[in-house]
Amino acid sequence: MKYREGLNELPTYDVTEKDWDIKLNANESNLNLPPLVEERLLNRLSRIAFNRYPDTENDDLKELIAQNFKVSIENVLLGNGSSEILEKLFFAFGGPSRNIVFPIPSFSMYKIYAKISESTAIPVELEADYTLDPEKIVNAANENSAKLVVVCTPNNPTGNAVPLASIEYIAENIQCPFAVDEAYVEFHGLSAAGLLEKYPNIIIARTFSKAYGLAAARIGYMLASKEITEMVSKACMPYHINTMTLMAAAIVYQMRDEFVPRIQMYVAERKRMAEALAKIDGITVYPSDTNFILIKYAKATELNEYLENLKIGVRSFGNAPRLENCLRITVGTREENDTWFKVLKGFVERG
Amino acid sequence: MKYREGLNELPTYDVTEKDWDIKLNANESNLNLPPLVEERLLNRLSRIAFNRYPDTENDDLKELIAQNFKVSIENVLLGNGSSEILEKLFFAFGGPSRNIVFPIPSFSMYKIYAKISESTAIPVELEADYTLDPEKIVNAANENSAKLVVVCTPNNPTGNAVPLASIEYIAENIQCPFAVDEAYVEFHGLSAAGLLEKYPNIIIARTFSKAYGLAAARIGYMLASKEITEMVSKACMPYHINTMTLMAAAIVYQMRDEFVPRIQMYVAERKRMAEALAKIDGITVYPSDTNFILIKYAKATELNEYLENLKIGVRSFGNAPRLENCLRITVGTREENDTWFKVLKGFVERG
Repeated sequence: MKYREGLNELPTYDVTEKDWDIKLNANESNLNLPPLVEERLLNRLSRIAFNRYPDTENDDLKELIAQNFKVSIENVLLGNGSSEILEKLFFAFGGPSRNIVFPIPSFSMYKIYAKISESTAIPVELEADYTLDPEKIVNAANENSAKLVVVCTPNNPTGNAVPLASIEYIAENIQCPFAVDEAYVEFHGLSAAGLLEKYPNIIIARTFSKAYGLAAARIGYMLASKEITEMVSKACMPYHINTMTLMAAAIVYQMRDEFVPRIQMYVAERKRMAEALAKIDGITVYPSDTNFILIKYAKATELNEYLENLKIGVRSFGNAPRLENCLRITVGTREENDTWFKVLKGFVERG
Repeated sequence: MKYREGLNELPTYDVTEKDWDIKLNANESNLNLPPLVEERLLNRLSRIAFNRYPDTENDDLKELIAQNFKVSIENVLLGNGSSEILEKLFFAFGGPSRNIVFPIPSFSMYKIYAKISESTAIPVELEADYTLDPEKIVNAANENSAKLVVVCTPNNPTGNAVPLASIEYIAENIQCPFAVDEAYVEFHGLSAAGLLEKYPNIIIARTFSKAYGLAAARIGYMLASKEITEMVSKACMPYHINTMTLMAAAIVYQMRDEFVPRIQMYVAERKRMAEALAKIDGITVYPSDTNFILIKYAKATELNEYLENLKIGVRSFGNAPRLENCLRITVGTREENDTWFKVLKGFVERG
């Protein structure tokens, strides 16, 4: 068998999950859908023609999103999570000998999207405190004739948001499309979507998997100029999003006010936990604008193992550069947070 | 904006459907899920943790499929419809300057998969009666050092199955992987899956969208050697299939006996309609082993328009080579078939 060049270097995805008591490793919402939303969704699912290919529903969801952002449906593209959006952006603008600039550490899949699209990744290091220097991104993009720049803000896994002024500076000073991955933006509140009209090279990627608690359904979307949207949509196969997911996302989007209280709760809990963690000797807490907190601790590996044995799942980054001894902890419900915090504090204080 | 080379040549998918009274244009099952299956599915959907990424459920469905075919789960890969399976096969084995052989006329997406994977399509013409000469496929594959051969059987849109002896002959005499697209196999009954053990280059692609009436959910799968499965899975993104779809497919697969009566009905109706159509002067009926019938008729365009105005949707192929004046009609329920047949017969007899 002769496989495509480079395919062998791609990882085999093995996301086997353990039977966690408290799951804090994937930045999901730790609450299932609000009862009112779930009720309406189940009702809608009971009326699906399962035997028919997905079709017009796609436009219903796009219409809702377009209305909210005061754009046309021609500026909206849906994907199987923002993952598919990002994968297709790397595909559409990348390719052999084409450079794509993104900061590191950031979302670990960018490297994979670069590889699978056969593009060349140009990673740009964040500063020592994980802040992003927009000048460095602009220089890397222009020096390498980048075909795409991707910035995740608020950034995963560091947690901090890039100031909108920096986003604007990048958009203004590069010559290529600029994808702003806003997977966690609902926990921050400041979106770059308002810059779309002024900078037609800006592309916003959003997901329903985090604040809107719909990770199971795999749905995300992209906002961009009509031209970019049309070209990237060519890389998506017909019927790529199933009807149940389209229904679920449309209902969640219609009822998104129902999610406001829990988003506020996660933001309040993030603040509470960050402050509590900061008081523990030996733990460095990085500022977060998301639903997770990145900490640094000399014995992170041992702590991770200890938590694992107690069925508490957090995200360790192993030997990933710039993330040594770091753990990323999703902010859960107040009760969950009290539980893991007590366990973590006990471990650290025992040394 | 500088897009990936060739992206511009890809079509923009616009599958806007009309408000059909009788929909016979996409080879869907014209019956929604059997009530028992739907009841169990809705019950299961009500217990989903929508807030969690899909995970182990994936293995549940793979396990069910593996058991049925007496293979290991390492021989099974799931996709968003067999579409995603085929797309990834073209990607994994294709690429720049790599040839992929498939017959024409056949599933129209093969051309697109070749283009999007930047492979070179080597189409091999079917005979005048749409039968496939295995020798021609073998020669095209070997002369062009093909990296993948794809054969759809029973073939869409012609309807006829390729004899298993021909499939075996191809598998034995080519030097590359051989994907057998069995989207319609349940209406035929003879699968090449039994050849998997003897010919490790065979890959079987299956879908839940046709006989199992789950087109809305987008689910299909692939059976292949452990090596091929692992390599092709590298081209699939993590969490590419959502939880609702995994649940739906697992329940349908567990309860697949419930689908036997309707499959028998479609086969009986296909026979009945093919015989009735053959009696109409001026209509050529091609033999079908699927849930659709391909006909040729001098005024196909006008007939298509006439049906369209009566809200009866069939598939016309426009100027597609070898399919001039052809219409593909999905076999519906007995009542639907009586209706469209009467309309069609009236149109033709009026001349």
